[in-house]
Amino acid sequence: MVKPVCLVIGAGAGIGGHVGARFARAGYHAVLCRRSDQAGLDRLVSDIEKEGGSASGFLLNAIEDGAIEERAAAIEAEIGPIEAVVFNLGAQIGDRALADTSAKAFEVGWRLATFALFRTATSIFPAMEARGSGTLLVTSATAAVRGNAGQHSHAAAMGGRRMLCQTLNAEFSPKGIHVAHILIDGAVDAPDTLGKMLGPERFQQLREARGLENDGLLVPAEVAETYFHVAQQHRSAWTHELDLRAFSDRPWWNH
Amino acid sequence: MVKPVCLVIGAGAGIGGHVGARFARAGYHAVLCRRSDQAGLDRLVSDIEKEGGSASGFLLNAIEDGAIEERAAAIEAEIGPIEAVVFNLGAQIGDRALADTSAKAFEVGWRLATFALFRTATSIFPAMEARGSGTLLVTSATAAVRGNAGQHSHAAAMGGRRMLCQTLNAEFSPKGIHVAHILIDGAVDAPDTLGKMLGPERFQQLREARGLENDGLLVPAEVAETYFHVAQQHRSAWTHELDLRAFSDRPWWNH
Amino acid sequence: MVKPVCLVIGAGAGIGGHVGARFARAGYHAVLCRRSDQAGLDRLVSDIEKEGGSASGFLLNAIEDGAIEERAAAIEAEIGPIEAVVFNLGAQIGDRALADTSAKAFEVGWRLATFALFRTATSIFPAMEARGSGTLLVTSATAAVRGNAGQHSHAAAMGGRRMLCQTLNAEFSPKGIHVAHILIDGAVDAPDTLGKMLGPERFQQLREARGLENDGLLVPAEVAETYFHVAQQHRSAWTHELDLRAFSDRPWWNH
Amino acid sequence: MVKPVCLVIGAGAGIGGHVGARFARAGYHAVLCRRSDQAGLDRLVSDIEKEGGSASGFLLNAIEDGAIEERAAAIEAEIGPIEAVVFNLGAQIGDRALADTSAKAFEVGWRLATFALFRTATSIFPAMEARGSGTLLVTSATAAVRGNAGQHSHAAAMGGRRMLCQTLNAEFSPKGIHVAHILIDGAVDAPDTLGKMLGPERFQQLREARGLENDGLLVPAEVAETYFHVAQQHRSAWTHELDLRAFSDRPWWNH
Repeated sequence: MVKPVCLVIGAGAGIGGHVGARFARAGYHAVLCRRSDQAGLDRLVSDIEKEGGSASGFLLNAIEDGAIEERAAAIEAEIGPIEAVVFNLGAQIGDRALADTSAKAFEVGWRLATFALFRTATSIFPAMEARGSGTLLVTSATAAVRGNAGQHSHAAAMGGRRMLCQTLNAEFSPKGIHVAHILIDGAVDAPDTLGKMLGPERFQQLREARGLENDGLLVPAEVAETYFHVAQQHRSAWTHELDLRAFSDRPWWNH
Repeated sequence: MVKPVCLVIGAGAGIGGHVGARFARAGYHAVLCRRSDQAGLDRLVSDIEKEGGSASGFLLNAIEDGAIEERAAAIEAEIGPIEAVVFNLGAQIGDRALADTSAKAFEVGWRLATFALFRTATSIFPAMEARGSGTLLVTSATAAVRGNAGQHSHAAAMGGRRMLCQTLNAEFSPKGIHVAHILIDGAVDAPDTLGKMLGPERFQQLREARGLENDGLLVPAEVAETYFHVAQQHRSAWTHELDLRAFSDRPWWNH
Repeated sequence: MVKPVCLVIGAGAGIGGHVGARFARAGYHAVLCRRSDQAGLDRLVSDIEKEGGSASGFLLNAIEDGAIEERAAAIEAEIGPIEAVVFNLGAQIGDRALADTSAKAFEVGWRLATFALFRTATSIFPAMEARGSGTLLVTSATAAVRGNAGQHSHAAAMGGRRMLCQTLNAEFSPKGIHVAHILIDGAVDAPDTLGKMLGPERFQQLREARGLENDGLLVPAEVAETYFHVAQQHRSAWTHELDLRAFSDRPWWNH
Repeated sequence: MVKPVCLVIGAGAGIGGHVGARFARAGYHAVLCRRSDQAGLDRLVSDIEKEGGSASGFLLNAIEDGAIEERAAAIEAEIGPIEAVVFNLGAQIGDRALADTSAKAFEVGWRLATFALFRTATSIFPAMEARGSGTLLVTSATAAVRGNAGQHSHAAAMGGRRMLCQTLNAEFSPKGIHVAHILIDGAVDAPDTLGKMLGPERFQQLREARGLENDGLLVPAEVAETYFHVAQQHRSAWTHELDLRAFSDRPWWNH
């Protein structure tokens, strides 16, 4: 029997990889896509398989013309119906003054955070609509709801992402496709993103400072539980927007 | 062994009763409180017991001085530690022009929707804080985020409720108490509230009009799954605010 | 000829007094109301008169039963038609932990910030509606849109105030009554409120720290220009919600 | 003496042209830019000159590489210091299902509504920063705060525009540059945009249906008064975000 597919676009060792593993544990075939690091990708796939799950991995440059479109078509043709998509591409480039934000950087932010989501929906929703069901879980960031200094590229791109989630929901929710905008409002304990941005030493310092019992940062495996829950919500009670942060962290709206 | 208690304030046959039952199925003792209808209350308790769960029921007039405070103290003394509170009091009185909204009605809305929540937190958080954990799930309404014509009492009260959830979260989240504001953005398939407001005939007409497969209104048993999930979230990944609506319904922000 | 009245509820030496003076300069009769300090009130009135304007002053305890209602009726009967109301009552009591926030304090916050606005609208809108025009300018606070730790009373009351502004606007805007919610998002250079809360020495220190050219705090006379502009907007282009802060200050949504 | 310049990007016969004229009446030299219709542009310029004002007009294709940048530099070099910019480019293409929204249309929306604003700020803010003052007034749309069905391109682009206004404000407000996001929440009585979209007959029908006294749509000359006021606000009391709609219209958040 063909397993339903959970496609993760942006599958590192943080949220993306853990959400894929969570769906695999529930019987989905996880298709993990990331831009680079074949070895890291292979490790995620084999970790799922060791647990008895089923997964595939593909390198995918999401901003390349046709890359998402072709991957989605190939999955539907060769692996199985994509029942859930986890759109987990980040576009954080750190704080940069306007003068230090090139037109190129501004545009790449949009291509990753906004346009790639549009292309994902355009590629995959027709098949979901034909089947009358599907789920699109979109990882979002605080920058989608407030624009801090230095976040010109990131916030503009994430603000576009959030509104696009709303327009997709407005058109496709009545057709049985569940779109959720999941606002990750805090630092994630993720070696592939935060770890690389900070470097190993500062990353470890931050983990220890927040530490308590290793739960002062968002723990990806725990985040994955909520992604999975949202995807399983009955269609009479769907969540479109929710936030996630560690108990010890301050919500974005509090000073 | 003493079971943890899930206290439901506002336990009718809709969200409140179903959330209580969901927690009971997971091993909590459900304490169901509602203002009136002893027979209905007894039925909820016995339904839980028939399923093998454990529950108690109390009539409670939440706006009466001391009523919440005394009930909370008695539960902690006689039944067990309140680990979860479901604050589910509504204050919808239908659309009324300003001229038809008495000062009394305006005040009662606040006493039910805002002040009773303050008193609930004041009564129960000290014990939760001493234990280092606890959950407060607050049912909220669209009126908490937008004020429609005729909703003077309801919207003012719910707007207060939402801000109070934020101040409670800001103070108590770092102490291990999880506060969640759950925005019910649509009609609930609940005979005790919507059913009574519309009368049996119009209620059934609405159910059939939305009907499809009896999931065009928010189904309380399904809503309860998300309440329970939020209460089980690991403290490294807590949700403070989320919305819930039927797939076929339009979110409040869309026209 | 009878001058149109601008009624200010909450007229100290900060925003309230300056807005009254601004309307008086434009030909309105300013009616200034405040809870206490007859001498301060007399000074505000005589300052307006020295400038050639027209004003009256009344002590008014807004939370007293009937006080707003009777004052409004007396003004309409004895002074002139209330064309503009500036609702400028604050309810900030400083940061207090939940355990230090009495039920009484929580209720008084609501009586001042929310219920008094309801009573103001109830008292004055019928005459405005009969005339087909009127303006209600509501001073609001950051606490209306986010609840910080320690702000239980203030935020719940201001959250209610904001939603009430929306319900009032929804019902009365089509009837020609302009309701505006003006979010004061920063400290005001106001000796009667901030000055008293901090004490003279800390107030002066803050002014100097922000100082630059005495415009690091919100300058009430400048704030008054925007209140006046909003009241003069043509009904084809009304603002319902706007924010105000000093250029050197950080908006509430930025960390 | 050199007059300060008010540069309007997107100057048709609606908001853009009227705001330019309003600034010209106050002594600014208005520089009006629009993509096409030299005759219409000439008419706007000569209307300002007939009133005794001073203006220039340029055709400008804002999405063309370098076009905004070169125009801004030429104005600073040849006409005068740009003290105010009115960024008034719309990107509404009507409601289109996702399947009917081409990648090209989605991208053009972003180039007009988001990227052109980034380029405008990048071009003009350095000179404003050097002078220690300046104003950027950004016309925005309801789609910046909620994504309706069919608005995929428009809402994503406007959501990005709004967050970009916040990041610009966060960085440049302390440097004396005032950024305001003006949410036009309703139809504007503008022959060049709404009139062309509807055609002359339906446009006139809408005007009459809303009509009353020709103020059921947003009247551009009245809108211009608020743009001008915001640009004149003292830096101790700046507005970042405000909405504008006709009294007879319903705010976006009300159903």
